[in-house]
Amino acid sequence: MAQTIRELGEHGLLELIRPYCSDRIGDDAAMMGATLPEHEMVVTTDILVDGVHFSDRTTSAEDAGWRAAAANLSDLAAMGATPWGVVISLGLPPDTPITWVESVYQGFTDCLNLFGAEIVGGDTVRSPVLTLAVTAFGQVHKQRKIQRNTAKVGDVILITGQHGLSKAGLELLLHPELAEKLEQRFSATLTEAMIAKLHIMHQRPIPRLDVPLLLWKLFESQSPIANSSSQISGMDSSDGLADAIAQICRASQVGAKLNWQAIAIPESISQLAGDRALDWVLYGGEDFELVLCLPLTLAETLIKKLPSTTIIGEIIAEKKINGLDMYRTFQHFN
Amino acid sequence: MAQTIRELGEHGLLELIRPYCSDRIGDDAAMMGATLPEHEMVVTTDILVDGVHFSDRTTSAEDAGWRAAAANLSDLAAMGATPWGVVISLGLPPDTPITWVESVYQGFTDCLNLFGAEIVGGDTVRSPVLTLAVTAFGQVHKQRKIQRNTAKVGDVILITGQHGLSKAGLELLLHPELAEKLEQRFSATLTEAMIAKLHIMHQRPIPRLDVPLLLWKLFESQSPIANSSSQISGMDSSDGLADAIAQICRASQVGAKLNWQAIAIPESISQLAGDRALDWVLYGGEDFELVLCLPLTLAETLIKKLPSTTIIGEIIAEKKINGLDMYRTFQHFN
Repeated sequence: MAQTIRELGEHGLLELIRPYCSDRIGDDAAMMGATLPEHEMVVTTDILVDGVHFSDRTTSAEDAGWRAAAANLSDLAAMGATPWGVVISLGLPPDTPITWVESVYQGFTDCLNLFGAEIVGGDTVRSPVLTLAVTAFGQVHKQRKIQRNTAKVGDVILITGQHGLSKAGLELLLHPELAEKLEQRFSATLTEAMIAKLHIMHQRPIPRLDVPLLLWKLFESQSPIANSSSQISGMDSSDGLADAIAQICRASQVGAKLNWQAIAIPESISQLAGDRALDWVLYGGEDFELVLCLPLTLAETLIKKLPSTTIIGEIIAEKKINGLDMYRTFQHFN
Repeated sequence: MAQTIRELGEHGLLELIRPYCSDRIGDDAAMMGATLPEHEMVVTTDILVDGVHFSDRTTSAEDAGWRAAAANLSDLAAMGATPWGVVISLGLPPDTPITWVESVYQGFTDCLNLFGAEIVGGDTVRSPVLTLAVTAFGQVHKQRKIQRNTAKVGDVILITGQHGLSKAGLELLLHPELAEKLEQRFSATLTEAMIAKLHIMHQRPIPRLDVPLLLWKLFESQSPIANSSSQISGMDSSDGLADAIAQICRASQVGAKLNWQAIAIPESISQLAGDRALDWVLYGGEDFELVLCLPLTLAETLIKKLPSTTIIGEIIAEKKINGLDMYRTFQHFN
């Protein structure tokens, strides 16, 4: 029986992948139908490379697939959109085990299935390095786009969950000995549960597609908010919380006053990172939460429905962010 | 001044790329508006890897960019669609010269501009190998989709241009000494012009987006053909002429009777390839022409407007193709 992609051949590889894909596949391009009434199409793309964005030290093939899907769905969530379809291309060294490819597609579709999204196209090619290229497209109601250049002075800044956990999970995967720091502070059982949770936060982040859905429900049910749809700006925090705030401020030509007390530092992160804990929270990245700027009344309504969300500051006219270096962000080419 | 991507940094790289991109870029995803009335969206994707799909021996950075655009636009043409937008992601080793990146985007947009298409998104990441991942989406009128599973017995098989020229160009680029074969047969000037043309056929293939446009014009102007829109099936010949015919036959559950006299073997190919000339024409690939199956009357109308098109056979009920191995196609993983 074939063990590697080389032995399987191109025809066999296509047969292997087909069960994971929509029936739309089969022509030079996939037919997707028309946009929904009153909706617009949005599109986003990401490319992930072995040894740069994932590694078998920290990420199984299933997790690599999951994370590739999550990153792109998170971009759709950040626009206020719902998924329409996803295409995935793989670059594979010929000696790639068949099980690796199956696992990537399994993880990828596991994440898509959470949100009823499906693979509608792709390409598989030979490459010296494992590479995943994903493009996702979604649809958003004309009145409900979320963009990063519409934050207004007086808006509050809201985050949909905790930050730094993905970074903590990654550090624990790279340096398992770090767990001793947790063991000194917590009971062994608690420590094990914490480690497992932090691993999961890194390996299986959940894109916040639930947030726009909830927002639109609030719009529909609450007449005072009915006109607020264009009042939300924001983006996701995939490149870090600080980066998201800085990007929104730059695009909207505003500044931000952060309430540092409101930015939670989970105790596990305090223990692991010591005096770098706030760094992990602000610059860790890959938590895939949303950072939204919106009127206080709307934010309060959302928090009632989604208690994990927190107001962490407000938008101000002066183009600076208290205590934050606006240009310290991920550097991918160093 | 920065010479490489590492020196330029991520922010500098984004500044470098922005002039080539649509203003739609700037959020987590690009806003594309709604589909045109009566139209549906189609999507296609390709990934190209240095040393596998292009190489500095045969393809400049500009040509690599052009070919990446052409391959995806050709898939749209094969569906009968017009381009709506394109996203391109680059995997770059940190020591990639800045000029290489600029040249890729230049070649890529040169091809897009021919057809009024634009870059609406992308991603740039570090990778040990130069990688281009492209996703293109287009729109096609509901009544004018071209798919490969609707070929009907009695349809004629039509090709929109010559085949084997891209392969001939590639061979000349890899083995310049082959040119001597042409010199023995033709005058020196003629040989030079031939070589230049064959190089171009490999480096700058032109996707046949003109063909569906012309077909739809014919539909609109000629009442007897007005109902023929669902009568065209086909695909592009990017994986070779033989592969395209075989794929259409398999998807449509039919066979084909080819008229071998009608399949032109350009004299330059005869000279270069000797007794393998027909092989180059049938299996060479990457000519990016269209292979269409349609009623004879419609084909004849098209040929009058587009004399480069040729009828090369017809669709038959028996599931075989005379003289062609239906399973001999590109093998990408050997």
